Amino acid sequence: MNIAIVGIGLIGGSIGIRLKETKTFDKIIGVEKNEINQKKAIQLGLVDEIESLEDAIKSSHVIVLTIPVDAIMSILPGILDVVTTQVIIDMGSTKSNILNLIKDHPNRGRYVAAHPMAGTEYSGPEAAIPDLFKDKMMVYVEAFRSDEDAFDAADSITEQLEMKSSFMTAEEHDMHTAYVSHISHLTSFALALTVLEKEKSQGRIFELAGSGFQSTVRLAKSSPDMWTPIIKQNKSNVLEVLKEHIKQLQYIHDKIEKEDYDAVYKWMKKSNKIKRIIK
Amino acid sequence: MNIAIVGIGLIGGSIGIRLKETKTFDKIIGVEKNEINQKKAIQLGLVDEIESLEDAIKSSHVIVLTIPVDAIMSILPGILDVVTTQVIIDMGSTKSNILNLIKDHPNRGRYVAAHPMAGTEYSGPEAAIPDLFKDKMMVYVEAFRSDEDAFDAADSITEQLEMKSSFMTAEEHDMHTAYVSHISHLTSFALALTVLEKEKSQGRIFELAGSGFQSTVRLAKSSPDMWTPIIKQNKSNVLEVLKEHIKQLQYIHDKIEKEDYDAVYKWMKKSNKIKRIIK
Repeated sequence: MNIAIVGIGLIGGSIGIRLKETKTFDKIIGVEKNEINQKKAIQLGLVDEIESLEDAIKSSHVIVLTIPVDAIMSILPGILDVVTTQVIIDMGSTKSNILNLIKDHPNRGRYVAAHPMAGTEYSGPEAAIPDLFKDKMMVYVEAFRSDEDAFDAADSITEQLEMKSSFMTAEEHDMHTAYVSHISHLTSFALALTVLEKEKSQGRIFELAGSGFQSTVRLAKSSPDMWTPIIKQNKSNVLEVLKEHIKQLQYIHDKIEKEDYDAVYKWMKKSNKIKRIIK
Repeated sequence: MNIAIVGIGLIGGSIGIRLKETKTFDKIIGVEKNEINQKKAIQLGLVDEIESLEDAIKSSHVIVLTIPVDAIMSILPGILDVVTTQVIIDMGSTKSNILNLIKDHPNRGRYVAAHPMAGTEYSGPEAAIPDLFKDKMMVYVEAFRSDEDAFDAADSITEQLEMKSSFMTAEEHDMHTAYVSHISHLTSFALALTVLEKEKSQGRIFELAGSGFQSTVRLAKSSPDMWTPIIKQNKSNVLEVLKEHIKQLQYIHDKIEKEDYDAVYKWMKKSNKIKRIIK
């Protein structure tokens, strides 16, 4: 039994490496437009061979989509048109629009919506690492709409990746990820730009950048090719959380301006409650 | 020769541990108001004994201040009044107000303004670690106003801590730290609160929090006792950078709202330039 991985970057490549280790499939087939990345994927041993999407669908039982979410939107209906007993797993970071797009497709049952909550700020085949998914969360979205054997095939991959799992509706998923993932990326991009702009006039400003700065801006290295589509597909949730985040910053700006340091203290103290969530 | 460390938390305690290792001083004397922290400091071996500030000034050659910046403001003039040949090193995170406060003091030369660009989100004596400062930057501010022997004493401690060093004016220091440190803390506090508020109505929201979220909010665990005074003492720089950061976030909010995804892509791409700064 073969598996096809469509898009061999950080996520696709890391799945490839790990499934090679576990020997779950006879062959791991890579589908990748970019010729340089095709070569890298073979050289790095992320996949066994490169095929066209058409051939890969024919020769595989499982097809995993690990391309940007707008690309998933454009190829998923066409794949569903041609599958029979195959299973298609979409690993994209947003779900409502995609699920809406294919909800009435006659082959809907062959499709599993899954989102591995794992990643780094790096991208491309060379960013792939075998332990990327270990102990992280795989979120299944509207799993009850997938055929049982299709879901089981997806879940056995989740097991091979050594992940935990959770079930959500598309609305829950897209709202939650806006809060715990998408906003973190936007604040990092914004913070990096704030300081980069200032550096133009002041220079030397990064000489003092310590580990605190590094951890808050590291996500600003993330790929715009991946992140622009995520923001686009999750527009309304992202706008909501962005608005609330700006409100928090505006609140503290005003308190500092008015020299109300009791309010500043209380605001920080309240924020400290995050200790019960993160180690 | 003895050294007195005034305030035995993350910074003071880490200096204590390290200087015990290097055996630079005969005795490391801790000055600490909080009785629980006094006991911890002794138990953890951060200092050799606890003394009152008055006694510690008399029995030490070097006095290091590692208390919140407003507390430094209130005790530094009194310490300068009574020193003769001793050296006082202030390790606080803001400098303009402090330097302004003591600029005409007859014993000004005995004082060295230094800021170790090192820390973690943890606080208190139990947060102290020996390698906190290794390879980090010690920033000297207006070093030319310190007596040569006083500066040399401070610099030999910088060497014992295995730090690099840099020289700045107070204005440069306070502006640069607002950009690469103070703003990171404020955005982390704000981000934690944004998500904590949402959790009240939605629950389960942290189930999906991955490493990206963790790294952008970890500074929200920082101590309000330390950070409120920093924000207060660096008010004008903090307000400036906060305003620019909000402007960046408002800009991207508006572009997303208008569905101008080309602009979103370009904004992220520009932010990627941070790659040349951080690893």
